Amino acid sequence: MFSDPDYLAVLQDIARNEVAHRDWDSGTDTTVRFAFVGLGGFTENVVLPAISETDYCTATVGVTGTPETGERLVTEYDLERILSYDEFHDGEALTEYDAVYICTPNALHLEYAESAADFGKPVLCEKPLEATSERARQLRDVCDEAGVPLMTAYRMQLEPVTRRLREWIRDGKLGDIVAVRGSLDIDIPNDQWRFDEDLAGGGATMDIGIYPLNTARFVLDAEPKAVTACTASPRDMEVDEHVTFQLTFPGDITVHGQASFEAQPKTEFQVVGTDATVCVSPAFNVARDRTVEILKDDQTTELVAKWGDEIVEEFDYFAQCLETGMAPTPDGNEGVRDLEIIDAIYESAERDDTIEL
Amino acid sequence: MFSDPDYLAVLQDIARNEVAHRDWDSGTDTTVRFAFVGLGGFTENVVLPAISETDYCTATVGVTGTPETGERLVTEYDLERILSYDEFHDGEALTEYDAVYICTPNALHLEYAESAADFGKPVLCEKPLEATSERARQLRDVCDEAGVPLMTAYRMQLEPVTRRLREWIRDGKLGDIVAVRGSLDIDIPNDQWRFDEDLAGGGATMDIGIYPLNTARFVLDAEPKAVTACTASPRDMEVDEHVTFQLTFPGDITVHGQASFEAQPKTEFQVVGTDATVCVSPAFNVARDRTVEILKDDQTTELVAKWGDEIVEEFDYFAQCLETGMAPTPDGNEGVRDLEIIDAIYESAERDDTIEL
Repeated sequence: MFSDPDYLAVLQDIARNEVAHRDWDSGTDTTVRFAFVGLGGFTENVVLPAISETDYCTATVGVTGTPETGERLVTEYDLERILSYDEFHDGEALTEYDAVYICTPNALHLEYAESAADFGKPVLCEKPLEATSERARQLRDVCDEAGVPLMTAYRMQLEPVTRRLREWIRDGKLGDIVAVRGSLDIDIPNDQWRFDEDLAGGGATMDIGIYPLNTARFVLDAEPKAVTACTASPRDMEVDEHVTFQLTFPGDITVHGQASFEAQPKTEFQVVGTDATVCVSPAFNVARDRTVEILKDDQTTELVAKWGDEIVEEFDYFAQCLETGMAPTPDGNEGVRDLEIIDAIYESAERDDTIEL
Repeated sequence: MFSDPDYLAVLQDIARNEVAHRDWDSGTDTTVRFAFVGLGGFTENVVLPAISETDYCTATVGVTGTPETGERLVTEYDLERILSYDEFHDGEALTEYDAVYICTPNALHLEYAESAADFGKPVLCEKPLEATSERARQLRDVCDEAGVPLMTAYRMQLEPVTRRLREWIRDGKLGDIVAVRGSLDIDIPNDQWRFDEDLAGGGATMDIGIYPLNTARFVLDAEPKAVTACTASPRDMEVDEHVTFQLTFPGDITVHGQASFEAQPKTEFQVVGTDATVCVSPAFNVARDRTVEILKDDQTTELVAKWGDEIVEEFDYFAQCLETGMAPTPDGNEGVRDLEIIDAIYESAERDDTIEL
């Protein structure tokens, strides 16, 4: 059996839901009323169901260009108001929501963040933060200047196993880190906005490659020095359908990332250390049972659990930040940084060369 | 269930040992008597036990610098003769063996291959072919000039699942190949010749990184265009203890390789295609039960079997080549090519840059 009880016990307790794993939760009661900007599949099928599981959040306003969707969600999730995008920009129903969650196509994030900032409403904005690093900087700056909190919605950073993994790495429990690998393959129809360069800014790299990229930066708590990448679009789409990248971090740690819009659905995240190797699978699917395999002292321990719904965690964390005045992380700078690294990924792929960061 | 019976049935049959998977076996009976040059742990514990399982090979002569080992193996494996290295070079016992298997430290391969070539004896030489690409070219040339067959002992190329995987890729069963990943982590004492730069030529890259490198080249049946790599020796050894590399192949296929001398033992090989993903685990351990996981049509099929002892396969294949006059592959050129790519891996790691191949 696994020989470091401190190390494993934490996971076993989380797996059994026997300990609070919310290292960020002050316990102060609050209710944050959210306006949901963009009522697409992710909001409807993943986020709104999660909101009802939160302790500190409620869904009051939906903002959409398709009134039928709005009407359905009013009934289904007990929303108070549906606004058109123009009504939102015009500042309607301002007394009915406290914060804004933006989940539109990437290139529309900025305009809704601008309006939210004008209204003094905190912003939780989906990843990538915008369609380009330049627009992401504008989005960050507009929130900064208005003094409204901005969080980039990297849900993995609130996922309990990922948070523990970061602590173990920081505490040297895995020894020296040698390599990190993360992949996210999905198979999606190529008729959606994710394949539209104007709306998305890029393809598999922007939409899903960002998961291994950001999660690696998070668990290593470090910044890459250089990147070498390859992108491809065999079906000749406007955007990349496949991406592979290799990042070099300080201490000769390498991160391999791979993501695809057209492959069998599979996702893994693995951290190789001199003393232990930890594999999470499936890694980046939302709110799923995850297998965590820990190799240490030549022994393998495997735990399977729904470690927590990281959407619930993310929204409650954001609400706690607003209640207690804690600055939410990942913040806007982190969202900008990933887009700057993604710029380098595309440049590397274009030039067939290593790009210094 | 898996929907392509032709595809899966082959593996199931192999797993049950119900079909001959020796696509190279003419069935012509032969017995090739081998001299084993270098009686280290791999020869004693892995190769000699396998020889007794072969159809076409027998072990007659051992060549060693430690007579005690020789005496033990004479008894245990019924060898006819033990020679010192000098006696081998002097051409003793030439009538007692037909071919030579070289399994010494890398930098000694050349001198034994030279003697074998002088004697007109075919050579099966362990990987890497030598300690440097220059010496590997000399080794290849000396065999060429003497007209003796030379095979580089990449056992994975004779491993039945790896051979099938190559066929499936060639036949398009996996769709377009997107990415290949291979890793081999071991934890070995740092007092052996593998850490001696003069004897080994390099560290983890040369000894174990070569497995994902060569196996990827084999299954893709293609040559890389560029490489970006990172090596490290945290314990400040003469050679690299960790390596990560990313190779770009034609068609925007990328290969990620990672190997470590100091990490928890784990090895995987994964091929991601647009239509199917195949994972083999453990991948590169010798003659082990391997799990083969196939994802296709959103279904996962997992088969576990000892697919064959690839050392047995390798020796019987080589014997068949000698019997039928078929030129053995992987040949000397292939052994040279990997060392040239390894040169580029070290250059890339040194220069922190992408190297064209």
